[in-house]
Amino acid sequence: MASKVTPISGFQEWLPTERIAELIVLDTIREVFELHGFASINTRAMEPVDRLTGQGEDADKEIYGVRRLAAGPDDTGDVSLGLHFDMTVPFARYVLENAGKLTFPFRRYQIQPAWRGERPQRGRYREFIQADVDIIDEGRLPDHFEGELLLVVADVFSRLPIGDYQIHVNDRKICEGFYLGLGIEDVTGTLRIVDKLDKIGADGVQKLLLDAGCTPKQTDQCLALAEIRSEDTGFVEQVRALGVQHELLDEGLAKLAAVIEVANEHAPGVVVADLRIARGLDYYTGTVYETMLTRDPGYGSICSGGRYDALATDGKRTFPGVGISIGVSRLLGKLITEEGLTASRETPVAVLVAVTDEDSRPESMRVATALRSRGIPTLVAPKATKFGKQIQFADRRGIPFVWFPGEDGDEVKDIRSGDQVPADRATWDPPAGDLRPSLVVPDVSSSGRKPNDRK
Amino acid sequence: MASKVTPISGFQEWLPTERIAELIVLDTIREVFELHGFASINTRAMEPVDRLTGQGEDADKEIYGVRRLAAGPDDTGDVSLGLHFDMTVPFARYVLENAGKLTFPFRRYQIQPAWRGERPQRGRYREFIQADVDIIDEGRLPDHFEGELLLVVADVFSRLPIGDYQIHVNDRKICEGFYLGLGIEDVTGTLRIVDKLDKIGADGVQKLLLDAGCTPKQTDQCLALAEIRSEDTGFVEQVRALGVQHELLDEGLAKLAAVIEVANEHAPGVVVADLRIARGLDYYTGTVYETMLTRDPGYGSICSGGRYDALATDGKRTFPGVGISIGVSRLLGKLITEEGLTASRETPVAVLVAVTDEDSRPESMRVATALRSRGIPTLVAPKATKFGKQIQFADRRGIPFVWFPGEDGDEVKDIRSGDQVPADRATWDPPAGDLRPSLVVPDVSSSGRKPNDRK
Repeated sequence: MASKVTPISGFQEWLPTERIAELIVLDTIREVFELHGFASINTRAMEPVDRLTGQGEDADKEIYGVRRLAAGPDDTGDVSLGLHFDMTVPFARYVLENAGKLTFPFRRYQIQPAWRGERPQRGRYREFIQADVDIIDEGRLPDHFEGELLLVVADVFSRLPIGDYQIHVNDRKICEGFYLGLGIEDVTGTLRIVDKLDKIGADGVQKLLLDAGCTPKQTDQCLALAEIRSEDTGFVEQVRALGVQHELLDEGLAKLAAVIEVANEHAPGVVVADLRIARGLDYYTGTVYETMLTRDPGYGSICSGGRYDALATDGKRTFPGVGISIGVSRLLGKLITEEGLTASRETPVAVLVAVTDEDSRPESMRVATALRSRGIPTLVAPKATKFGKQIQFADRRGIPFVWFPGEDGDEVKDIRSGDQVPADRATWDPPAGDLRPSLVVPDVSSSGRKPNDRK
Repeated sequence: MASKVTPISGFQEWLPTERIAELIVLDTIREVFELHGFASINTRAMEPVDRLTGQGEDADKEIYGVRRLAAGPDDTGDVSLGLHFDMTVPFARYVLENAGKLTFPFRRYQIQPAWRGERPQRGRYREFIQADVDIIDEGRLPDHFEGELLLVVADVFSRLPIGDYQIHVNDRKICEGFYLGLGIEDVTGTLRIVDKLDKIGADGVQKLLLDAGCTPKQTDQCLALAEIRSEDTGFVEQVRALGVQHELLDEGLAKLAAVIEVANEHAPGVVVADLRIARGLDYYTGTVYETMLTRDPGYGSICSGGRYDALATDGKRTFPGVGISIGVSRLLGKLITEEGLTASRETPVAVLVAVTDEDSRPESMRVATALRSRGIPTLVAPKATKFGKQIQFADRRGIPFVWFPGEDGDEVKDIRSGDQVPADRATWDPPAGDLRPSLVVPDVSSSGRKPNDRK
């Protein structure tokens, strides 16, 4: 064996118990995505480098280039490849490549790792899992999908113990229409400055806007817009009160109001219209989303996205879409690493079959085969040690039941209560809650996290 | 968008329907691995290059090196990293890194992509998924695990429509003991030559053995051993009949006989003792496995592995293990790409809720929420077109049911039979077979594959 064994900064690996917690979270996300009618796709880990860098943000992305070591330093025969840094670029490419074989509107989910070479920090990794849903159409995309995606996310989070959170929603058209109505011409530049509000504060934004040529009146109005928030459609009246008129503003307000109404009917209490949300990426053109944990908004968004009118185009056809991405690794960095979310055991095993002596191992294996055939994860004890030791073996792994094969009939022991009862290998089932490992949510008081009253 | 959109040779991507077939296969593998008591781990995609190349076979492996593009050509600050080419090297590293936190014997499964830069060919990809199970212990590993792993693989394949197959099993100790008993000193070199039997034939092997210094008598005996096969323990007598004596040979014969007996009790008809199986890798020390599809043995092994006594060691502690790897991408290259295995629909959706007009979309969304809350994958029609068009939308995607919300009660149509009946959104369930997409096995006659008589 070569170099010494050390973790690599920015590359998270879980121990078995934490990995089970991660799997439960991933399974839940996938289940909800499928319930909402999204089909899975998986794209290769690599894209041509020029496709990855064609996204305008390459400086941030810190792409990992990939190259066959055997190719040698002077071999330029292969296309230059890099690891994808998100699911959006590969998905856009996949849609273009397979457009003739897909049915639109195409709803897909994609749960895969991505890689960015940036400096690792809290909630930011060099290898991380994202769980994306997008709805993409050919030509025109109906507006109602922008509200529908919120329901998917709210449904996912209602099934996970993530604590209180809010999805902050805005519509780019509101900002654009408002700025245009104010007579500001550089809409994108203004958006970019206002987007820094959380980082540099109102004074900082004011200064940048004035520097960019806005009048004091325009500057005040931009800041006033960014301060508007409401959990219902009250934001419409607040914006109207600022007295700015523009067709695009009207359109944006109506769209956002529709999104908030749908959300409040199907997922009350989790969405807030927040007119400061802009999202850095240029390609968003309608609704934009960001999601914060109430107990720690500074941790950053755990789920973001928006509508884009032309993410993928081959010159002839254009594919508008709306998508949202759950930052699974970031979320678990908070829940598992910082707060101690874990699983009820370190193995899927529900039953350990004891082995009386090595000669009777075949009989213990027959018990295991019978239990497995009925869907019960089962392990045969690795050694025919004393029963006390075999029970200890189960206990150490969190396995709740130990099975004792007997000539006069089998018995099963719940090692938590100590109860041991006769049992038939052909019919016995563990209580439903013990069949699979489950999430163990850390004690509220010790971690400082707020109780999750949405369960 | 940058470069034109083209597939990259050796990187397989599926369309949604094929992807659903792949997911069903992956879910089945995972389910069986968990039923047999294996815990999931996931390792990072990258390892230090010197760890990857320290495996003795680097020339074959065609490692992909990874490097931050932003690092520039002269920046050597980072450890040199490469993408893993299997699950074994990262697993060995993981065990060493976490030995103090794992409980032994440690049973883990790992289902992840791996990458090799070799020339793509039939059944060989540059990016491919492997599904591995290993049992690793500290110090000494009991022999009985070598039979147990066969049951895991047989259980997986009994639930998948892969057609007839056989797992070929040997024990390295048989060959080693036999060669030593014959007076051959270079055991490893002899193994390597005999391993070429399938490629170069008996004449070729005979020549190489003679060239390597074997006597004609030794050569004949080596070839005679390699020709022995039996589906039961009959191989023991056939080996004995060759008249070679050695303690290691006795041990190997007893071990392999035990493995075959266990397999024949729990998974009759799928295992064959095949004394020509050697496996190229140096690190195997006991049982070795290879798995061939009966209808196309030349396609190569779809599931291989063996016992290793010292895969992972940190100098002080040694971790022996036994493992087996299902080549998922290779298997699906046969089943999906060559033979047309597919899924019953291109989406998880079981029910499309029709939309009468855009004003009643909220009511259709309420139906969808009610069905989803009971675990039924549901989609609301994207546009309020004529019902005939909405039914066509479902039909084109393989969605079996269309739901019509009505003021006097809802109705649901099975679009395959045309039957339309009143239905209650709070209680109606699709038939169990329609809830999720299922595998569709291609017609025997059109693909030339043999009927799968094992379900």
